Amino acid sequence: NVNKAMNGAGNLMDFLDEPFPDVGTYEDFHTIDWLREKSRDTDHVKIRNKPTCYHSKESIWELIKSLLDAWSGWVVMLLIGLLSGTLAGVIDLAVDWMTDLKEGVCLSAFWYSHEQCCWTSNETTFDDRDKCPQWQKWAELMTGHAEGAGAYVLNYFLYILWALLFSFLAVSLVRVFAPYACGSGIPEIKTILSGFIIRGYLGKWTLLIKTVTLVLAVSSGLSLGKEGPLVHVACCCGNLFCSLFSKYSKNEGKRREVLSAAAAAGVSVAFGAPIGGVLFSLEEVSYYFPLKTLWRSFFAALVAAFTLRSINPFGNSRLVLFYVEYHTPWKTTQLGKYPVLEVIAITGITAVLAYPNPYTRRSTSELISELFNDCGALESSQLCDYINNPNMSRPVDDIPDRPAGPGVYNALWQLALALVFKIVITIFTFGMKIPSGLFIPSMAVGAIAGRIVGIAVEQMAYHHHDWIIFKNWCRPGADCVTPGLYAMVGAAAGVTRMTVSLVVIMFELTGGLEYIVPLMAAAVTSKWVADAFGKEGIYESHIQLNGYPYLDVRDEFTHRTLATDVMRPRRNDPPLAVLTQDTTTVEDVETLIKDTDYNGFPVVVSRESERLIGFVQRRDLTLAISKMKQDGVVSSSVVYFTEDAPQLPASNPQPLKLRRILNLSPFTVTDHTPMETVVDIFRKLGLRQCLVTRSGRLLGIITKKDVLRHMAQMMNQDPESIMFN
Amino acid sequence: NVNKAMNGAGNLMDFLDEPFPDVGTYEDFHTIDWLREKSRDTDHVKIRNKPTCYHSKESIWELIKSLLDAWSGWVVMLLIGLLSGTLAGVIDLAVDWMTDLKEGVCLSAFWYSHEQCCWTSNETTFDDRDKCPQWQKWAELMTGHAEGAGAYVLNYFLYILWALLFSFLAVSLVRVFAPYACGSGIPEIKTILSGFIIRGYLGKWTLLIKTVTLVLAVSSGLSLGKEGPLVHVACCCGNLFCSLFSKYSKNEGKRREVLSAAAAAGVSVAFGAPIGGVLFSLEEVSYYFPLKTLWRSFFAALVAAFTLRSINPFGNSRLVLFYVEYHTPWKTTQLGKYPVLEVIAITGITAVLAYPNPYTRRSTSELISELFNDCGALESSQLCDYINNPNMSRPVDDIPDRPAGPGVYNALWQLALALVFKIVITIFTFGMKIPSGLFIPSMAVGAIAGRIVGIAVEQMAYHHHDWIIFKNWCRPGADCVTPGLYAMVGAAAGVTRMTVSLVVIMFELTGGLEYIVPLMAAAVTSKWVADAFGKEGIYESHIQLNGYPYLDVRDEFTHRTLATDVMRPRRNDPPLAVLTQDTTTVEDVETLIKDTDYNGFPVVVSRESERLIGFVQRRDLTLAISKMKQDGVVSSSVVYFTEDAPQLPASNPQPLKLRRILNLSPFTVTDHTPMETVVDIFRKLGLRQCLVTRSGRLLGIITKKDVLRHMAQMMNQDPESIMFN
Repeated sequence: NVNKAMNGAGNLMDFLDEPFPDVGTYEDFHTIDWLREKSRDTDHVKIRNKPTCYHSKESIWELIKSLLDAWSGWVVMLLIGLLSGTLAGVIDLAVDWMTDLKEGVCLSAFWYSHEQCCWTSNETTFDDRDKCPQWQKWAELMTGHAEGAGAYVLNYFLYILWALLFSFLAVSLVRVFAPYACGSGIPEIKTILSGFIIRGYLGKWTLLIKTVTLVLAVSSGLSLGKEGPLVHVACCCGNLFCSLFSKYSKNEGKRREVLSAAAAAGVSVAFGAPIGGVLFSLEEVSYYFPLKTLWRSFFAALVAAFTLRSINPFGNSRLVLFYVEYHTPWKTTQLGKYPVLEVIAITGITAVLAYPNPYTRRSTSELISELFNDCGALESSQLCDYINNPNMSRPVDDIPDRPAGPGVYNALWQLALALVFKIVITIFTFGMKIPSGLFIPSMAVGAIAGRIVGIAVEQMAYHHHDWIIFKNWCRPGADCVTPGLYAMVGAAAGVTRMTVSLVVIMFELTGGLEYIVPLMAAAVTSKWVADAFGKEGIYESHIQLNGYPYLDVRDEFTHRTLATDVMRPRRNDPPLAVLTQDTTTVEDVETLIKDTDYNGFPVVVSRESERLIGFVQRRDLTLAISKMKQDGVVSSSVVYFTEDAPQLPASNPQPLKLRRILNLSPFTVTDHTPMETVVDIFRKLGLRQCLVTRSGRLLGIITKKDVLRHMAQMMNQDPESIMFN
Repeated sequence: NVNKAMNGAGNLMDFLDEPFPDVGTYEDFHTIDWLREKSRDTDHVKIRNKPTCYHSKESIWELIKSLLDAWSGWVVMLLIGLLSGTLAGVIDLAVDWMTDLKEGVCLSAFWYSHEQCCWTSNETTFDDRDKCPQWQKWAELMTGHAEGAGAYVLNYFLYILWALLFSFLAVSLVRVFAPYACGSGIPEIKTILSGFIIRGYLGKWTLLIKTVTLVLAVSSGLSLGKEGPLVHVACCCGNLFCSLFSKYSKNEGKRREVLSAAAAAGVSVAFGAPIGGVLFSLEEVSYYFPLKTLWRSFFAALVAAFTLRSINPFGNSRLVLFYVEYHTPWKTTQLGKYPVLEVIAITGITAVLAYPNPYTRRSTSELISELFNDCGALESSQLCDYINNPNMSRPVDDIPDRPAGPGVYNALWQLALALVFKIVITIFTFGMKIPSGLFIPSMAVGAIAGRIVGIAVEQMAYHHHDWIIFKNWCRPGADCVTPGLYAMVGAAAGVTRMTVSLVVIMFELTGGLEYIVPLMAAAVTSKWVADAFGKEGIYESHIQLNGYPYLDVRDEFTHRTLATDVMRPRRNDPPLAVLTQDTTTVEDVETLIKDTDYNGFPVVVSRESERLIGFVQRRDLTLAISKMKQDGVVSSSVVYFTEDAPQLPASNPQPLKLRRILNLSPFTVTDHTPMETVVDIFRKLGLRQCLVTRSGRLLGIITKKDVLRHMAQMMNQDPESIMFN
């Protein structure tokens, strides 16, 4: 018997040397503990803690080992860059082809887009590049008539049909295979990066379905951008490659460093702007962004942009970015309950209204590109239909202000209609159950408005050269107003809340370093105006709507409450559920686990002294007990959290020693600590919970959920909206 | 008597309602407590903590108030931008003038620099822009002979004389008026931003003297840049304007937010690169950089760059940046003890050696500018002396590879000599007791090396067109190697450790968005090579040499020590100096203050229970006792840290109630907490000290100095090098 007990003890010791399987993992829809992940990473590195001197040989070996360890991070970055660049390139090509498929087909090779089709045709000259014999509109192909009302109606009808088909496929695929693939994904990625677990959100299926449905959704002509979803796709790639390295797959903290860099790579391919991507990741998406991650993000973004460029070197749709979104209350409509119907309806409306107006029929990126254009000599666009002064014999690429021709006035009307249409339809589009970004539509709205204002000012300056504001500004004969620049500034202003990264992205896109002042001014003004309406960005609103536990780094908590006001138990609650270090039995523990749903329990010396010694996770406790029950532990066994269990007679039930799973350094604050400090600590250290003491006695506990609910209450919001812990 | 005691108590109450004067300030060369500063800021804002509902009227008023409060920040930024931009413009103009003064003088107006002098002269044509009659070299002016050996020697001699005069003035002014004005200032600013107090370092005198001596030092021709000092100047401006707003002047934490933005403005004017400035501040200088600061920095940087441009619109010396510096052990030489002599000697050597070589005689920024230049048709530089193939009739601005002429070979030799000279003299120059930056010289070294390599590759490609590496790369007739690009990449590689901000600065400087890949590759490679030699940058080494308590965000602490290994008291030390909440007398406290030099003392319930209730600062304790001694408190009075002092008979000495100065939420960790976590907490929360407990009992204390000493020990460095707390 003694032998058996000894054996049992021996087993116990062995067992304690290697951790229980799954100990230290998290459940779905729970928050990770950053401090714990970080110290687990150190265990992994296993750097020996030597007293004073290193032998040079060993220190070289240490160096090589640490270099090898460091390289694995760079390898992951390289893989992420390669894959996300490739996917973005494929998406670009597919979207180009399918967008054109709505209008017609290339006879020489059906997989060519309109542009490719006409580029490869030899007989084209510059002027009719858009009209080559190989490219036929559907009406021409089916009836032989390219012009006329009948052909127009047939093309119109087929355009709508294709659009409906694409959007139906997109919404069905999302519904059936990967519900997480819908939307832009940025709010969820922000939440995940802040330490939340949503299993499958960055999985392989999501990656596949999001890639396919993104192509379908964009091709269908809906007013949405592909930039947010591309960030999601890149993060899925990052998660995929994390699983190749145990250093990253086993540590939720390290994994998030990789994901932050992947987000940068996503923005990099979305806009072809690597530096802007890094800044976007830093400013908008990431939560913890150590400098090491900055450099790695830089590398991943570079590789991704480079890969993309080699796949799709002539891609001109690079001129479009993200989408910062105004959340609208449409979700409460009856339609919202039937996602497929909703998507079909919106697609139908979009297609019907968009086709007749040339500025809404084309893809949004082409639209923005045209709006940015300055009217040079070779420009055949309607927008450049100015009346040339026959008296002037200046070089054509340096045209000063001229009176607008009928084409410009016509374009103005169409642009005004397009503006209204874009604003309304974008509000309804965003939030549908298909992959959708908001950046391009926002930019388009801004660019349209900017161009309209630009033309107006230009014409005013032309007709009223003597007004004071124009007098000093416009010298005769010189070009004093550039409507294209107004459009660019408008586009920058259209996207609020992302000042620095936005301006850098605009630089990288347009190469317009000389416009730094108007761009920055537009970005800052737009941010100020948006701030006046409310401090929350679209992503934050979305996070809040979903009830995710996201502690925004930007929210300032300035109320003067104390930890004691927030901690549980509240005044009339039952006392705090605690374990004692050496008097609780397995049965007590099981009862406690069954009766409560807390994520963990403080362990105290005794109920009388209330002196805290540690904190144990519910999940670890359950795992340990179920594992040890196979090894002779019974319900009446005493659970010991002390360093040594007392030597009990062999007749007593075998003790359960659980110091191994006890967190001996739980985070504590005193009850007098201002909540501002507590919020700061939760934010900066990424805590899950924090224990509250007074004069060394345990009083209560504050969890991340408690903090978020308290913050919501202080801002007069519904605290019950925070649903997860 | 009772009355008197009542009065005393009444006084006490009043007294406690308003804090003691100077309570909560810090001594020189001490570290601030970020958490404390932060919660003091909240007290300032005084947002009322209302239970549930706001009336719309009040909430509008709240909005206006918070807007007004927010605007004060923007106003400070505006002022900083204006002043630092103005100062940078004045410095630029003065440096241009004084640099040229070493060679000659403008007859039409002596305050014109060479360029301005010849620009204003009407009769100049493009070719001899550098040689106009108004500008006379000293020899010409004094002897009438412009050419010949005698004139050369006289010019050489006067050049050296002027250089010596300028550097003598610079070093004397620094010595006599503002010793803090020497060096680049970045290490100290980094330390200050991390929460250290160095009084006078950002004062008005430093501002004035640094501005003047920077002009003198740069003009003297020493191998130093003005970029680091410009950051110091901008931070002095920031500190100056902080004193206008009590919100910033009274809170060390808020003040540092302003200073971070001022640093961005400094880089912005130093390089004319606002975005790069913001990133530099983020990556290299700042410690805590909330997003709000990002936006403000952006604004300040923009205003500064704009102001500078309006003052010095033709400034072409914008093409130069910072200085990342290799620390050399020269400080131990005999010469180091005589700063003036040292400066004179180095200036003499620099002037003597620099004058004969055209690449070292001119200012470093002009040199870099020339090295970056591509050889167009109008280029008259030696570097562009290629042999034109007479058979070719191509447009001159698109010249393919050509064989180098004698001028290029000559230039190669001079560049090689200049490279050696720059490397050696820069090592000796940096660290002298005058304002000096390191960025321009580093860039110059990189650019010279890059240009030499570029020319070599170009000539190799010309003479060996059939080599495999050149075959695919250079099509016949096309320009396959651009030496100027090599110089640019070399310059980027010359400045290590500043990857992202460096690349952005290079973009802003050169507008070279298309060179993103080679630039990024150069920056990353250069960082990797530097990391292989050691993780520490020049600024960190400097901070360490000075013994400042700087906890680098980038250092990873991966050793497995525990808080118990670091805390004091150590095993054989006397017990921890604590106060009890209600049994210590004023005399005990005074003895404790006299016998120890700790910055603060924990307060416990009783020595037996060791239950912690708070922490009191030494400075506050001293101030409170000396103040209260005037109000009837005597040595035998008991000090009460409890909420209520007991009602004592009037014969007892008046009690001293000090709960007001007691910090009731001291930061605690358990003795089992890994040091990695403790380091993380100190870093992220900016703590000054942290108390260590076990099972609710106070065991010891860990200060920032302890943490830094422990980290130094773990890295086999001398822990005694950390001198301040």
